[in-house]
Amino acid sequence: MKNQSLEFWYEFASTYSYLSAMRIENLASRYQFEIAWKPFMLGPIFKEQGWHDSPFNIYPAKGRYMWTDLARQSRKRELSFRKPSVFPRNGLLAARIAILGSKEPWISAFTQKVFQANFEKDEDISDVEKIKLILNSLDLDSDKIIALSQEGENKELLKAQTERAKQLGIFGAPSFIVKDELFWGDDRLEDAIELLTDLKKSL
Amino acid sequence: MKNQSLEFWYEFASTYSYLSAMRIENLASRYQFEIAWKPFMLGPIFKEQGWHDSPFNIYPAKGRYMWTDLARQSRKRELSFRKPSVFPRNGLLAARIAILGSKEPWISAFTQKVFQANFEKDEDISDVEKIKLILNSLDLDSDKIIALSQEGENKELLKAQTERAKQLGIFGAPSFIVKDELFWGDDRLEDAIELLTDLKKSL
Repeated sequence: MKNQSLEFWYEFASTYSYLSAMRIENLASRYQFEIAWKPFMLGPIFKEQGWHDSPFNIYPAKGRYMWTDLARQSRKRELSFRKPSVFPRNGLLAARIAILGSKEPWISAFTQKVFQANFEKDEDISDVEKIKLILNSLDLDSDKIIALSQEGENKELLKAQTERAKQLGIFGAPSFIVKDELFWGDDRLEDAIELLTDLKKSL
Repeated sequence: MKNQSLEFWYEFASTYSYLSAMRIENLASRYQFEIAWKPFMLGPIFKEQGWHDSPFNIYPAKGRYMWTDLARQSRKRELSFRKPSVFPRNGLLAARIAILGSKEPWISAFTQKVFQANFEKDEDISDVEKIKLILNSLDLDSDKIIALSQEGENKELLKAQTERAKQLGIFGAPSFIVKDELFWGDDRLEDAIELLTDLKKSL
């Protein structure tokens, strides 16, 4: 039987997407499911809600709490989280590459390395040189991939994916979809997996 | 040794406060801690963020998701959740009574009954007759308690508690405080308890 898949909707600037990206592959191999990697852009979705910045910047009390919480959650999971000096960082280039490679074997490693650059190493993920180094470290043809990612067709793919996110009712990241059910936030990843596991049993 | 206490900051209109209110007492007896009951009003805090309604109403995608999620979480916990026909309901009277009785033996039962009225029975918790019925069901002198709750001094207590919430960095409900650490959301209740348990061990 083909494994059911779990859609992982993420944005490279998103703090809680980082937490999920760092653990989803382990969970996929433990519970035997496929991950459908769904990079998208939160900016256009936030704009529709009237936000032209991260809500964590717009609402300072919420933002202060988020950084404390993220540090706590990272400690529990033994992640080397470091608060980035710039937030949110522009993840457009990384997202274009991720959508280009979303079905390639390197998608998981690329995704993790970009999140680690942003949230562990305080590096500028919008810098093409930084992204090139990440691709090179995965033994990939970085020049070719970066060029392809910037082509019109691929840019449109990412726009369409963000549009699709809106249609699915996605309003934040990370989000997970199993069948038609939406789960929001790293805290709900286990619930999404549980639904998937129940579905598999019933097949 | 005196038990450490966990501050439970809640608002009767808040959906996720309902989830916490329905389980915190069981957790307190399992993990041996005292609950410091801290009813407060979210309205003034939301107003400072520019919101004159619940963010779940202002941001429809987030609101739709919340009701789905709340139903799912309630099912997992075998709670008889029913989506209220009015949201958010005005919890001012109930909060005044809760702050008046916050150290009384009936605070837990009163709190739960108000949340059940709102989120299980679709009843109007701002209605003084409804609140009277709840107090009567606990064998309390409802007329006396309601009168005391409306006195100037008690009204000021609730205002001061809401002001204190702001100073503590509280921006939503439920929130939990252990020592000086803030935890936001029903999903973080276990983390708050874990910190409390670690503190107890280290004493």
